[in-house]
Amino acid sequence: MLANTQPREEHPPGELMLAEIREQPAALRRLLEAVSELAPVAERLRRAQPSVIRLVGHGTSDNAATYGVYAVGLLCGWTALRDSISLTVYYDAPLDLRGSAVIALSQSGQTPDVVDYVERARARGALTVALTNDPTSPLADTAELVLLLHAGPERAVAATKTYLNSLAALALLAGYTADNGKDLAEGLHATAETLEGAISALEQPVARTAADFAFIGRMFVIGRGLELATAREIALKLQETCRVAADALTATDLAHGPVNAVNPLFPVWTIATGGEATFPAVLEAARRARAAGATLLATGTAASEIEGASYQLETPVAPHPTLAPLLSALPGQLFARALSITKGYDPDKPANLTKVTTVP
Amino acid sequence: MLANTQPREEHPPGELMLAEIREQPAALRRLLEAVSELAPVAERLRRAQPSVIRLVGHGTSDNAATYGVYAVGLLCGWTALRDSISLTVYYDAPLDLRGSAVIALSQSGQTPDVVDYVERARARGALTVALTNDPTSPLADTAELVLLLHAGPERAVAATKTYLNSLAALALLAGYTADNGKDLAEGLHATAETLEGAISALEQPVARTAADFAFIGRMFVIGRGLELATAREIALKLQETCRVAADALTATDLAHGPVNAVNPLFPVWTIATGGEATFPAVLEAARRARAAGATLLATGTAASEIEGASYQLETPVAPHPTLAPLLSALPGQLFARALSITKGYDPDKPANLTKVTTVP
Repeated sequence: MLANTQPREEHPPGELMLAEIREQPAALRRLLEAVSELAPVAERLRRAQPSVIRLVGHGTSDNAATYGVYAVGLLCGWTALRDSISLTVYYDAPLDLRGSAVIALSQSGQTPDVVDYVERARARGALTVALTNDPTSPLADTAELVLLLHAGPERAVAATKTYLNSLAALALLAGYTADNGKDLAEGLHATAETLEGAISALEQPVARTAADFAFIGRMFVIGRGLELATAREIALKLQETCRVAADALTATDLAHGPVNAVNPLFPVWTIATGGEATFPAVLEAARRARAAGATLLATGTAASEIEGASYQLETPVAPHPTLAPLLSALPGQLFARALSITKGYDPDKPANLTKVTTVP
Repeated sequence: MLANTQPREEHPPGELMLAEIREQPAALRRLLEAVSELAPVAERLRRAQPSVIRLVGHGTSDNAATYGVYAVGLLCGWTALRDSISLTVYYDAPLDLRGSAVIALSQSGQTPDVVDYVERARARGALTVALTNDPTSPLADTAELVLLLHAGPERAVAATKTYLNSLAALALLAGYTADNGKDLAEGLHATAETLEGAISALEQPVARTAADFAFIGRMFVIGRGLELATAREIALKLQETCRVAADALTATDLAHGPVNAVNPLFPVWTIATGGEATFPAVLEAARRARAAGATLLATGTAASEIEGASYQLETPVAPHPTLAPLLSALPGQLFARALSITKGYDPDKPANLTKVTTVP
């Protein structure tokens, strides 16, 4: 079978993921250089005045959509939701989509039911926008408007730079739609610079912290508001690369049941972004988790304010409050990569996953 | 401190929860007897023709809201979403709510940020409906319209009959709004009867199955579409009463990362409702979880179709397809109660939880 044997580039475990984590400031700048592509899409959205923005995507893209709900709400005052793909694609529910806009997220642009959803939504009169890294993908072909991530090829299975560029693209789109694009673009330029410093500063401390978690099997990750997306993305990275059953919860979710599953062998990661409207609830959730015996790991700008935390990793304050999640995700990316290697896995190539997920 | 000492009724562990599980058919019938209360609310919704229905609630109420998204979409063709409470209550985002209707769910009617949300939404012009078990609660006072659950007092901390009555009330409300209420009411009458038989038939087999899971620490629960609510509610029951880190996932979520966390010590519970548009995705998710080494527990009408499942517990077919989740939840309730007792806990009084959650 020599004909099928291709030479395969070999990399040390996690090399690709680390390179892509480090590339994130540059990837953000590439998106900013192409910011003029956003203006016509924002203009179409503003003219359409959609009654609702429907965000669809899976995995990391769904986590970016979680951020989009808050970015669109805070910057445009519009209602965005992570729409049910199954209602439209599998149940064929008779939803009236004429007043809606759709933002469909897929790095590869190949996720079959996302493409299918966009095709149906467009046929039913929704304004459809694809947010993808591949201009030649089926998703880009199917949507009426295309916004490119400009993240460059992503080779590690666990997405990092495409996640950050998805958040940035959503923030810019919401900002330009609300006629406030310049503020967001300036904020993102500054964020890219802040991120650069944070990567250098955090790589080693995060890796040392991760080593202490070598034998965990589960974790709760607590965020709220804008940082719910961060909690979900960190949990997903841990599932993908470390085989840890990590579950993301809002601070309030925790009190309504899950706190009872916590015990001293059960670490709880708290995303502590200070100055946020939602911070008191996060503080209270951490207090309850600690009272139940959990080992606390706190990250974020206010990590030091989480009482009883065994691990505190501070991140820099974002230049614009809506952009905080771009900096908060970084410790999760670095932690997941380091822990995966500690456990003897290769975070670039998780055993049961492929880069492009094409199953239903 | 004798003055503060109250005599406390003592019950064997799980007695209250079992009584309330068994009471569910009667509780459903009480709701049906009061069905005339629904008509004026449905009429107001129909006249309002809201651009979107905003569902809010925490814990079990949030799981009922997950069902509401599908019930409203399938029966009315309207878009419903589980709205972000923090956007309105904590961030005070400038959302235009005039074209919206709100359905706020709280068994006790006391959840502070749900009451706060309703107060704000009503002031901003939304049509507000409270769905609660307590007509004298702050939530009932705050909303413009009130729908009572008629479940009777719920004393076990883990909600069971109020969950089923919440689903039933949402289905009836969506049905009457779509001028199809009689069908749903008849379906619910038949469901109460089917449920009665299912409780007798399943109590013992589910308890025997649960005993085999005495040493698990984590679990994935897979559902899709209408049954996503079931997966979320079963996961919550396991967290609340068994201290198991159970995580609910859609069938598609699983493939986009979490499947890599599965191993032979990691059971996966699959909600297999046959004849559903979403069943092929559930079958495929189960196949992938099994391939990754998971022990499969399958429940639902098509439990026997899940290949390689070590445990299969069939549930009866629902008299109306939209009502399937009322029967699918039952094995989860019985399983959580039995496993909790096996582990030496009292499912009626989880260590870190109270019946009414009043933290932020």
